[in-house]
Amino acid sequence: MSEENVVYIGNKPVMNYILAVVTQMNSGAPQVMLKARGRAISRAVDVAEIVRNKFITDVGIGTIDISTEELESREGSNSNVSAIEIQLCKG
Amino acid sequence: MSEENVVYIGNKPVMNYILAVVTQMNSGAPQVMLKARGRAISRAVDVAEIVRNKFITDVGIGTIDISTEELESREGSNSNVSAIEIQLCKG
Repeated sequence: MSEENVVYIGNKPVMNYILAVVTQMNSGAPQVMLKARGRAISRAVDVAEIVRNKFITDVGIGTIDISTEELESREGSNSNVSAIEIQLCKG
Repeated sequence: MSEENVVYIGNKPVMNYILAVVTQMNSGAPQVMLKARGRAISRAVDVAEIVRNKFITDVGIGTIDISTEELESREGSNSNVSAIEIQLCKG
């Protein structure tokens, strides 16, 4: 999957990310990957659910992966944060 | 799966839910289902990741499902909330 088919979910309003997914799919992308970390994980699930229920009804949920990523703070200490990847597939 | 193998994730500290999962698995449950809605979704992912990385290292992530649930408010209006189910399997 090319990098342009990935939508990183952050702290912006949900509708921004929905628009990004819909735009990519309408321009021909057969699948879009949602990636989120920490508290944005629940927003990523919202995006996936709203896209498939309200916007592109022939979109299905593909594989969902969860993982742990290690972040280094500016002081050099490490902290772990959970991450999710949700694959949306058209057709 | 019997109802006792389900851990509902809410707003308590993550460690409470981790303890619930570890207790169930140590008393013989081969799998435990984590269920969460709304903002607790990211906490459910934290619980799954911490259990398998720190507490029971032979636990794997089974299927992960996301869905939308309809909640009725006291005034009678409906609102939608995203939900996640994460299956943890031992062995």
